[in-house]
Amino acid sequence: MPPPTTPTASFSSRLTAIIRDHGTPACVGLDPRRESLPPVLRGSDPAADDPATLAAIFTEFCRGVIDTVAPLVPIVKPQLACFEALGAPGMTALADVIAHARAQGLLVLADGKRGDIGSTAEAYAAGWLGGPWAADALKVNPYLGLDSIEPFVKTATERAAGIFVLVKTSNPGSKDFQDLSNEGQTIYEHVAAGVEAFAARTAGGETYGAVGAVVGATWPKQLDDLRAAMPHAWILVPGFGRQGGRAADVRGAFHPDGLGALVVSARDVIYAHARPDMSDGLTETQWQTAVERAARDMIERLAADTPAANLRG
Amino acid sequence: MPPPTTPTASFSSRLTAIIRDHGTPACVGLDPRRESLPPVLRGSDPAADDPATLAAIFTEFCRGVIDTVAPLVPIVKPQLACFEALGAPGMTALADVIAHARAQGLLVLADGKRGDIGSTAEAYAAGWLGGPWAADALKVNPYLGLDSIEPFVKTATERAAGIFVLVKTSNPGSKDFQDLSNEGQTIYEHVAAGVEAFAARTAGGETYGAVGAVVGATWPKQLDDLRAAMPHAWILVPGFGRQGGRAADVRGAFHPDGLGALVVSARDVIYAHARPDMSDGLTETQWQTAVERAARDMIERLAADTPAANLRG
Repeated sequence: MPPPTTPTASFSSRLTAIIRDHGTPACVGLDPRRESLPPVLRGSDPAADDPATLAAIFTEFCRGVIDTVAPLVPIVKPQLACFEALGAPGMTALADVIAHARAQGLLVLADGKRGDIGSTAEAYAAGWLGGPWAADALKVNPYLGLDSIEPFVKTATERAAGIFVLVKTSNPGSKDFQDLSNEGQTIYEHVAAGVEAFAARTAGGETYGAVGAVVGATWPKQLDDLRAAMPHAWILVPGFGRQGGRAADVRGAFHPDGLGALVVSARDVIYAHARPDMSDGLTETQWQTAVERAARDMIERLAADTPAANLRG
Repeated sequence: MPPPTTPTASFSSRLTAIIRDHGTPACVGLDPRRESLPPVLRGSDPAADDPATLAAIFTEFCRGVIDTVAPLVPIVKPQLACFEALGAPGMTALADVIAHARAQGLLVLADGKRGDIGSTAEAYAAGWLGGPWAADALKVNPYLGLDSIEPFVKTATERAAGIFVLVKTSNPGSKDFQDLSNEGQTIYEHVAAGVEAFAARTAGGETYGAVGAVVGATWPKQLDDLRAAMPHAWILVPGFGRQGGRAADVRGAFHPDGLGALVVSARDVIYAHARPDMSDGLTETQWQTAVERAARDMIERLAADTPAANLRG
């Protein structure tokens, strides 16, 4: 499909507007996995092990989730690994899912954690930020250094898109390298300083720039510190729900007005058919109702325990 | 296409055998970019800006390079970013290119620098290592920590595949985070220690394990130290050729018997039609002859200035 027209407003201003419209910073992760799908979609056909058949099932599932959550949340986050796991048919499904999400008015953050140097970083940025994949934003891995992030920043600015750089991830192993300390600062704090510099440089007259950060919900104390260290950066917080983070744990990612944070839930929302608290009274075909209940539950919990309450004016 | 049968021999033993067969550790990078293609392929048709048209051109070009270098080198390294830049049609082209390389007897290292946690890392590993993409090995980014590498190691072992973990990259910005020092060791040395542990654990009775390292040709001194620090790891060395590394600079990556290293060249080989020293006397349609000359030149330079000479017995 042809690349869509570059939006006229910056990613940050578009994100701010749609968060205010919906009154929530909830981001729904799209992580299709065969073993977790609603049974009515998963089927019992062994041919569904064929990548092309599974890709069609992933498309149907993700479109169903998108149709359910589009009136409720501002943004969705397709997990590229889930689609890549199916090979080329999975990538065709991903393109369809992104296009469908945009057509429903959602912003799309491609969760690919890409990172490379020079013209290779340019190629990733050209493909994902706008471009053929037409995502609004992409996750970026900082290990290769600031000059590896620069091409993503350049393309994001040109195309009114955004990037989210991994700073402190939610997993226990994030301590292995991210927590190592150099001259009194951890590596993730060094990365955060780089993110803030990029964010401030790209903010123009706005509060936030085109470069945000990823900080896991499993680290509430670090969230407080990183919010202060990156005033111009949106902070994307994965790990809400099953990975152990509660609404109160993500408070630190917000500014007092309720902006500055995006909170992600994937499995707890999209596989809500398997949650007794969300699927009570529903038949198997009503899995989207469970998704809607879980999305509303997440939104209410964020409004109850974080500054996101202030988005409702 | 269905996943190929899992090889019976480990990745490391297959790599050793094919390097010995060809008498060289040269790895050719497949980085198709429209602006660099031989003019006879690039054409002047504006419709070639269409991703599907460009993807067909990339396929033709990469198949041509593969047919030329398959008798000469053991392994090729498609750069995933170049294919992703074209959207879904690019991924279909990539699948074709990988299948063609394997059909020509080459090993295939997918240069994707993937990295994620838990079941997401499992999905990447399931897709790339064998699986629908059918690569023999994948590059992995270590920023998320050792527990993020573990699922790749598990799948690599199960499928007789390999991974190459970024340790010290070739770009100047690799100093930003990789060179930061913690308790007398740089971050990349901490990563190297993790790589060696994985490599030793997966080596069984063999010299090398399923987990290798990436160290740029631009850091000859660090190559010496890292070779010593990771005796069980294959070291993949990008940056040979245009990125500034010479054959003498990559000596440190080898063990004295000529094994232990893979040296990558991409643009200097695949775009040799644009090098006066490789295209002398050739017409535009003879671009593959220039590729062959450049591959042979790379192989000879490695044999002249590194222990790779000892592979020829």
